Amino acid sequence: MKFKVPRGTQDILPSESWKWQKVEQLIREACEVYRYSEIRTPMFEQTELFQRAVGDTTDIVSKEMYTFKDRGDRSMTLRPEGTAPVVRSFVEHKMFGWVDQPVKLYYIEPMFRYERQQAGRYRQFVQFGTEAIGSADPAIDAEVIALALEIYKRAGLKDIKLVLNSLGDKDSRTAHRDALVAHFTPHIDEFCGDCQTRLEKNPLRILDCKVDRDHPLMKTAPSLTDYLNDESRAYFEALKELLSKAGISYELDPNLVRGLDYYNHTAFEIMSTAEGFGAITTLCGGGRYNGLSEEIGGPSAPGIGFGMSIERLLLALEAEQVPLTNDDALDVYVVTLGEAAKQEGFQVLQQLRAAGIRADMDYLDRKMKAQMKSADRLQSKWVTVIGEEEVEQQIVQLKNMAEGTQQSVSVTELIELIKG
Amino acid sequence: MKFKVPRGTQDILPSESWKWQKVEQLIREACEVYRYSEIRTPMFEQTELFQRAVGDTTDIVSKEMYTFKDRGDRSMTLRPEGTAPVVRSFVEHKMFGWVDQPVKLYYIEPMFRYERQQAGRYRQFVQFGTEAIGSADPAIDAEVIALALEIYKRAGLKDIKLVLNSLGDKDSRTAHRDALVAHFTPHIDEFCGDCQTRLEKNPLRILDCKVDRDHPLMKTAPSLTDYLNDESRAYFEALKELLSKAGISYELDPNLVRGLDYYNHTAFEIMSTAEGFGAITTLCGGGRYNGLSEEIGGPSAPGIGFGMSIERLLLALEAEQVPLTNDDALDVYVVTLGEAAKQEGFQVLQQLRAAGIRADMDYLDRKMKAQMKSADRLQSKWVTVIGEEEVEQQIVQLKNMAEGTQQSVSVTELIELIKG
Repeated sequence: MKFKVPRGTQDILPSESWKWQKVEQLIREACEVYRYSEIRTPMFEQTELFQRAVGDTTDIVSKEMYTFKDRGDRSMTLRPEGTAPVVRSFVEHKMFGWVDQPVKLYYIEPMFRYERQQAGRYRQFVQFGTEAIGSADPAIDAEVIALALEIYKRAGLKDIKLVLNSLGDKDSRTAHRDALVAHFTPHIDEFCGDCQTRLEKNPLRILDCKVDRDHPLMKTAPSLTDYLNDESRAYFEALKELLSKAGISYELDPNLVRGLDYYNHTAFEIMSTAEGFGAITTLCGGGRYNGLSEEIGGPSAPGIGFGMSIERLLLALEAEQVPLTNDDALDVYVVTLGEAAKQEGFQVLQQLRAAGIRADMDYLDRKMKAQMKSADRLQSKWVTVIGEEEVEQQIVQLKNMAEGTQQSVSVTELIELIKG
Repeated sequence: MKFKVPRGTQDILPSESWKWQKVEQLIREACEVYRYSEIRTPMFEQTELFQRAVGDTTDIVSKEMYTFKDRGDRSMTLRPEGTAPVVRSFVEHKMFGWVDQPVKLYYIEPMFRYERQQAGRYRQFVQFGTEAIGSADPAIDAEVIALALEIYKRAGLKDIKLVLNSLGDKDSRTAHRDALVAHFTPHIDEFCGDCQTRLEKNPLRILDCKVDRDHPLMKTAPSLTDYLNDESRAYFEALKELLSKAGISYELDPNLVRGLDYYNHTAFEIMSTAEGFGAITTLCGGGRYNGLSEEIGGPSAPGIGFGMSIERLLLALEAEQVPLTNDDALDVYVVTLGEAAKQEGFQVLQQLRAAGIRADMDYLDRKMKAQMKSADRLQSKWVTVIGEEEVEQQIVQLKNMAEGTQQSVSVTELIELIKG
């Protein structure tokens, strides 16, 4: 019997995990600079939370969720996205009452979507996301977008672009919705069954249908931009001015709608423009979600956030050939010869480590030559050799691998020398 | 409608998450010093993996797993423990062929067990674990134990003890098993139904029955220690000598068996001895699992590892009143007065952040006094004030909050002053 990693998921092995650590570290540092604090929510939530927040008719909820009954017969779902759980937590813990508003949160967490497998798309993937909840100021929209861009900048990506749209407020969206219904209704029988359902429930979702995307009515569909009311327009203008002043350039795309129901006003994506990056170029997507808190039973609390996949960030670094450096070379390899030396060597090893020195030894009773080879492979800066004689005299032979020099030293001297 | 965090799980809010970050950071640093590299495996695995590896008759597998069918009708289980997935990955990725053996891995990952709720026990909890696979040298057992202790030492815990036992090799365990069957059989009808099943399938598991733990036969049950063969005894002696030489003290407990089937030879726990820590004192548990790789279809690859809960580490820190320090004070708070100043202020804010300075501003259009209060609450070292006049003159007013001094500076000067 052979066991394999579940389809669509992956193991991250040591040859890759150090890159994840680097990227996560730079994310945490950027979040500190922007004063976003970490929140961690459970891996699963009540299924209804996502149905209410993300929307029943979205692909995510209707086709891609990992839903199961727990042993108490409650329907639970592995989180497919990060915003609904954070807003649920915001409401449950009454964060709207915290002194400092907006509450600025970030997370780096696995998400789960049962999607068709393709390059750069996993059924379990890790998303870095932020949520700023409690302010409807266009400046916080600008801040959130700037933070997303800051991550890519710190990581070293150059070939990226920001794409921006406004979905307008509720009134604007209702006007647009009516226009969409009028547009699609005469020809709805030419569309797939899902779209026919969407026409009634949520006509905006027709625009991201993968089946009917080449239907001529898609191109001529009424654009949201034409239905924005004055307030929505003013909000969008203020955001664009803030971005321009802060030196952040963007493209406008009136078709950018995002596949989640809760978005309104600002919607944005950051895309890779690197050659050969592949079919899916979106690295990060986000937007404003005024009304989501009320939708799940909380008070009014306008919010904005984004999610970016770490997997795709690493792919983009690869596509742009941005080098990451791994500084994991060993300080000391402890070579021992014989059983008594092994006991002594382990003691020396532990003293080195207690002093914060990266050290290792052989655990396979191999000959000296094989042990020296290991030291080389692990790029050890120093090697100590301990044989019978050294045990008797309570010393070790210390080799400096770069210089090729050797000396006899006591363990105390050894630690001083290496730390010095 | 109110949504709540699923029962037995928790949100980790900013007031706590910084502690998690600190502890995870010290774990990563200790792992580097010991040359353990990170591995990340998916949140779920084929259910059969845990049935095979952990054992059908264990409480974990028979009562506590979150098992579900995925959309491809495959039975999956949210990982209840970390060793089986890592060994699965070791086999699948042929790590037994890597040049440097043993392969030394660590993980910091959520685990899921549907247990009865009680203080310090969660249905989703985070475990730091290590696995050293590919060596049957007692020195690697000593290293793994030393690493676990090193974490608690670095965290600042003092009231802990190491408890040690040997479960012996396969032959020793078979001899002990026969003795257990002989011991319990005459009175098995006085035991619970589970124990009656265990007698046939896995009599060792009777010893961790929570129902029958006060039955007099429990105390007089034959001890594994008396059934260890010469080889198992020699292995255990070598380990104890290595620990003693490295200055690591331990208690022996012949009843320490651990609730997982895959353990043999070394078994250990690290427990809190802090007063008032609560009923469950185990902080960390681990042991050797020679044969587990073969059990799941891999080649022979003896291994040893441990798992420790981060939740319980944090509880132990609290019980011992070990202080952790949070150094998240803000560098600059940007106070703005009026719409033009807001636009300008956002630009200044972004320049500060681009220079790596921790900075924030107001997103609620509040009056100056309220903004100054925010700056105080966030312990901001500096405040810059920007009004209409400052926008015109392209300067900012800079206040040093500790000294109470104020000066007019340009943005370039501002950044230099704060960085200096």
